[in-house]
Amino acid sequence: MHRMKVLGLIALAAVSLVIGILIGRFAITHPQLSWLKRMSKDGDPKYSRQLHQEIQAEEIHKNLQFFSSRPHIAGSFQEEEVLVNYINNKWKSSLHGAKIYNYTVLLSYPDANDPNYVAILSENGVESEVSDKVEKILSPDQNDSTVVNPFNAYSPPGVIVGDPVYVNYGTVEDFQYLTRDLAMNLTGTVAIARYGKIFRGDKVGNGEKFGCAGMILYSDPADYVVGSLDKVYPEDWWLPGTGAQRGTVLLTNGDPRTPFYPSTNSAFYLDEKDIELPKIPVTPIGYNDAVKYLSKLSGIEAPSKWKGNLNITYRIGPGFASPYEKSKMKLYVKTHNVQRTIRNVFGFIEGEYEPDRYVVLGNHRDAWVFGAIDPSSGTATMMELTRALSKLLQKGWRPRRSILFCSWGAEEYGLIGSTESIEELGKVLGSRAVAYLNVDLSLAGNSTLRALATPILHKLLYATAKKVENPNPEEVRAGRKSVYDTWVKNQPSSQDPNLPRVGELGSGSDYSSFLQILGVSAADVRYNYDQKYSLSSYPMYHSVYETVDLVSRLMDRGFYYHQAVARIWGEMALRLADDVILNFDCVQYAETLQRIVNEVQSSYGPKLLQNNITLNSVKEAVGEFLEAAKNLQSRVEKVNRENPLEVRKINDQLMQLERSFIDPLGVAGNLHYRHVIYAPNEHNQYAASSFPGLASAMFDIENDPNQERRWQQVKKEISIIAYTIASAASTMQEHGTIGGGSTKH
Amino acid sequence: MHRMKVLGLIALAAVSLVIGILIGRFAITHPQLSWLKRMSKDGDPKYSRQLHQEIQAEEIHKNLQFFSSRPHIAGSFQEEEVLVNYINNKWKSSLHGAKIYNYTVLLSYPDANDPNYVAILSENGVESEVSDKVEKILSPDQNDSTVVNPFNAYSPPGVIVGDPVYVNYGTVEDFQYLTRDLAMNLTGTVAIARYGKIFRGDKVGNGEKFGCAGMILYSDPADYVVGSLDKVYPEDWWLPGTGAQRGTVLLTNGDPRTPFYPSTNSAFYLDEKDIELPKIPVTPIGYNDAVKYLSKLSGIEAPSKWKGNLNITYRIGPGFASPYEKSKMKLYVKTHNVQRTIRNVFGFIEGEYEPDRYVVLGNHRDAWVFGAIDPSSGTATMMELTRALSKLLQKGWRPRRSILFCSWGAEEYGLIGSTESIEELGKVLGSRAVAYLNVDLSLAGNSTLRALATPILHKLLYATAKKVENPNPEEVRAGRKSVYDTWVKNQPSSQDPNLPRVGELGSGSDYSSFLQILGVSAADVRYNYDQKYSLSSYPMYHSVYETVDLVSRLMDRGFYYHQAVARIWGEMALRLADDVILNFDCVQYAETLQRIVNEVQSSYGPKLLQNNITLNSVKEAVGEFLEAAKNLQSRVEKVNRENPLEVRKINDQLMQLERSFIDPLGVAGNLHYRHVIYAPNEHNQYAASSFPGLASAMFDIENDPNQERRWQQVKKEISIIAYTIASAASTMQEHGTIGGGSTKH
Repeated sequence: MHRMKVLGLIALAAVSLVIGILIGRFAITHPQLSWLKRMSKDGDPKYSRQLHQEIQAEEIHKNLQFFSSRPHIAGSFQEEEVLVNYINNKWKSSLHGAKIYNYTVLLSYPDANDPNYVAILSENGVESEVSDKVEKILSPDQNDSTVVNPFNAYSPPGVIVGDPVYVNYGTVEDFQYLTRDLAMNLTGTVAIARYGKIFRGDKVGNGEKFGCAGMILYSDPADYVVGSLDKVYPEDWWLPGTGAQRGTVLLTNGDPRTPFYPSTNSAFYLDEKDIELPKIPVTPIGYNDAVKYLSKLSGIEAPSKWKGNLNITYRIGPGFASPYEKSKMKLYVKTHNVQRTIRNVFGFIEGEYEPDRYVVLGNHRDAWVFGAIDPSSGTATMMELTRALSKLLQKGWRPRRSILFCSWGAEEYGLIGSTESIEELGKVLGSRAVAYLNVDLSLAGNSTLRALATPILHKLLYATAKKVENPNPEEVRAGRKSVYDTWVKNQPSSQDPNLPRVGELGSGSDYSSFLQILGVSAADVRYNYDQKYSLSSYPMYHSVYETVDLVSRLMDRGFYYHQAVARIWGEMALRLADDVILNFDCVQYAETLQRIVNEVQSSYGPKLLQNNITLNSVKEAVGEFLEAAKNLQSRVEKVNRENPLEVRKINDQLMQLERSFIDPLGVAGNLHYRHVIYAPNEHNQYAASSFPGLASAMFDIENDPNQERRWQQVKKEISIIAYTIASAASTMQEHGTIGGGSTKH
Repeated sequence: MHRMKVLGLIALAAVSLVIGILIGRFAITHPQLSWLKRMSKDGDPKYSRQLHQEIQAEEIHKNLQFFSSRPHIAGSFQEEEVLVNYINNKWKSSLHGAKIYNYTVLLSYPDANDPNYVAILSENGVESEVSDKVEKILSPDQNDSTVVNPFNAYSPPGVIVGDPVYVNYGTVEDFQYLTRDLAMNLTGTVAIARYGKIFRGDKVGNGEKFGCAGMILYSDPADYVVGSLDKVYPEDWWLPGTGAQRGTVLLTNGDPRTPFYPSTNSAFYLDEKDIELPKIPVTPIGYNDAVKYLSKLSGIEAPSKWKGNLNITYRIGPGFASPYEKSKMKLYVKTHNVQRTIRNVFGFIEGEYEPDRYVVLGNHRDAWVFGAIDPSSGTATMMELTRALSKLLQKGWRPRRSILFCSWGAEEYGLIGSTESIEELGKVLGSRAVAYLNVDLSLAGNSTLRALATPILHKLLYATAKKVENPNPEEVRAGRKSVYDTWVKNQPSSQDPNLPRVGELGSGSDYSSFLQILGVSAADVRYNYDQKYSLSSYPMYHSVYETVDLVSRLMDRGFYYHQAVARIWGEMALRLADDVILNFDCVQYAETLQRIVNEVQSSYGPKLLQNNITLNSVKEAVGEFLEAAKNLQSRVEKVNRENPLEVRKINDQLMQLERSFIDPLGVAGNLHYRHVIYAPNEHNQYAASSFPGLASAMFDIENDPNQERRWQQVKKEISIIAYTIASAASTMQEHGTIGGGSTKH
């Protein structure tokens, strides 16, 4: 019995000990283990729900009223002091930090006391049909003494007198039609070009190349009005005849005096005479003025594709018809360049586990006038997003990675703020930025989401749009509950109608330098108008009529579309900041490359073959790329999420992929564009071109007098594409394969 | 009593439970915790000791016998098949993997059946004093049918007849002396230049620029022999009069037909006529031949600095003196370019925790002839190092990071193998390589360690040299037990005599593209001869006499110096691969920058001031850099080593620092050299230049007819330096400061 007692005591002690060991081992978590556990989990979905709830439409409306209450052109007090300090203070007080970056750069303004105009000049020097020097005030909120009259930035000043010629959209093809098909000599003429289709800077560049002495840009109703010209603003959102589109005609990005280096205190500024600036005077007018000149042109009737919607017979010129046959077109331009300081504001939320990885969100702040659409609809949204995220921070949320918000200055002049900061901070951003998400403006219309992105972000865009409530009640009633549902219905992809279309990134906004210089994967989102209207942009683009009245009365009553954009933007940021493994789809990149190769094959294949050139090396590289992408994808699925270094390794590979498409020598020698797969179209910076180097080499190749040199260039471009894709594939391979590459043995 | 019993039982259970909990919590280590613990520790010092022991001098001797048994010029069967396969097989069987990379590139050879020579050509066409067409065999091991006769790679073929001119070392200053001070017209002359001081390619480039029609390169005893000309090889290691130095005269790196892109299957090859190749025929001779021509020159006596150690009166020419006054110098060159396949071999040891970080070690394999010094003394060492490390692997060692071994092909021709691989694999190596450690040759002599490195690696070099046993028994007896002790005694730094001198990296070996294109921190080590001999290189450099006999009999009996180099190389690799925090010294970089600025200030300051230019912006940037470096250093000291992501973040910053000095636009427009702080001297690729862009802009500025343009260039270069240093500083700042930069507000 005594022995039993002892055994019993031993047993009790042993059992207690074992229970203790088990508790100690498994029930009490070591702080490092719980840290590892937390770090291996994606962000809590509750924060996503809270973010969607927190984003208030009414707050965005208030923000828009503040930001677009007064004109805020780059370099102005309102823009660089009032708005900059407002944003900086907001972010300083609600985020983990904020900072202002200054750059002293070349800007351009018209002369407020001596406005630009165009007119008909008679033989004896009398001006008639003088164009409006200011846009007509159609609503009292446009009445502000700081409105800058219509002009095209970086036009040289000058007074030009010459024969008018109508050049349609001013594309290379339009000019070739005039000079080749019609054998017209354009030297010394004043081109009248309508806005639309291509970037206005390319129109002016073409005019210059084909010998024109000056250019007048106007907005044709065909491109900016749907329906009767009586039903325009303020009745509806269509452009009135007195509205003129401002805009830069600079063909490079960033301060033109400091290419590729930042315009900081230590900058070396090139002399204006040594830089590429537009050489012919140019200024914009409205269609009420344009009709006065176009209706009087002589010459043959314009081809049907050249005809706009003015109630006239479109003729080409050159010169005016009787009784104006001895008159000339006069262009009076006082636009001039000025050195000014512009500013970017950065706001920062510090990540908890990977603070040295930045998810970057950006919007520009500067507007041509009130900018209630471009860009303040985006700024209003960004400010609401940062307010909502600051609430989440108060509730205990802390992202895995850091989030960086950028308010860019002087975008309208040529992406100046973002380009200068990327030049200054490229070493930091290039090694730390995970992705760049741009919202230039929140809405150009209220029909459908429009997204541009590199292929690696498509999957994330789809997933995000599915999570965001449809802001259109009619669509919701029709069963399309999410932004995605309307998107895929209105804009099905041409490759797969079960997916919505995602466009390619040109050079139209601040994502350009992120993608083209640093190789950071990027996206740009907004709400867009119905594509059945074949508009060249939203009608009031860059006119004085871009006001809060326009937006709140005619485009987004209640600001629900703005709210949807804020949610999409915020949701993407949350995923990129909080997911353990970056939601990047490298297999989609491979498939896109295959599609591009097929398209290139069918466009150029026969012509190439005639010159004994094939795309085989590119096809082989794309094959390697696909294999490597699938391999990486399978490693993503198997990764041990509790091994932070393994996670980081995979994420680094995903993040590096886009960078591996960057050729430091530039595409076809253009150092502003270094992404070998996508770059802005050589003849239209707004549009993207796939395999841009090859596209450039093949463009109009038949008419090059030096055929041999051109075909050598084609071969070289194909070689660069094949090399770059193979090189990108090698970055996705497992480290044990050393460097990858095609010369295995 | 019963109650007491119950309480006793409870107490027993409770005590057992608590003990159990304590055991479970603290004594039994969770596998993840022990993993974190292991990962937070530097490599076990026992592996360092084992490595030192494992490295066998005798094995290195055997390796050298194998590698230098036969000539192995780039493109030959011995080089690209026998040696490549040997290395590949060794590494495949002993490391974690190996791989061969092929590149088809432009090489150059003399004609074996029609050797190059030079001679005096009389008025009536008779040749006399014909130079040796082959180097004399002085020892039976040199007798091999595959020896390639003396030539300069990439010389065009040609027969040149002209007046001889002695141009000393052929530097820019030498040519300026002839053309400015002596007002000599060099057009059509045959320059006789002595080897040494600067890279031979620069000599030829200068000759071409100053109008010479051809060039003869010879080795003057002043630069390659110490003491009597009777006591040369095979008696001693001095160059005999029949020895000629081979070598490339190409001024660019990599395959000249594919600049900046790899010569893989998909490469686009430029036509030879479109590339930069030397334009004047050139070939080397020994001093036994040179004396025949130099002794017969007419003209004034050469200045004292121009005089070599031949027993003649050095004269300048042009032309021969009586009785040869009507004779000319004839240069007969059959050197020609050929497309050949060359190969690199990579061997790989996979890291345990950070396999995607590579410590890269490299040595070239190709030699001009037997290459027992250059490069096979390095190859023999590398093979012994990999053998020793494979033993460590067997004993359980596994590095934290991966180690990559590179056996480069065609280095002698212009760093071709390494440049092509960096072009092909740059995206992978650029994002993963921690450092590049080069050993071109293990020893040029047996006096002292000679190290070249970027400042960030100096501290590691010192620490390593202190750990390695002094191979010189006399020095050990004198109390200098380590390699470091002799090094600091023989080569004290001019800044701080308590530290040994570390030189700057020019472009003399395969580190060039790592440092200049990718921005990977690099070092190059070897044993060197006593600097009291003012030799231009080790005497037998690139001659047929670089044999195992020379090395084992006259330079390193017992191979203990080789062994020391293997230990230094291996020890550095171990530290870089196994230390939790990279042993990188960013504060040293800051101090070096300060020193450079001071030097530049005292060299150029007054001249700059005369032109209203200051270095203030650079000084300010260096100040920022120093502050940021100290800040990073203090974070290094405080880092939580058990947080792998914090460790990685710091290491990424350390690793990125060198990369942030890279300007993708190249230094002063030269895309082969992109490191803004150090690049090869514009006039001597062997030497490094600090702030090379500025040095280039300032060089001979007084004599530029366009003063304004040159001073603008100076301003631009200063701006780029200031910007680059500030940009580098920003990468070291804590992430919370966003991007850093100088325009804080």
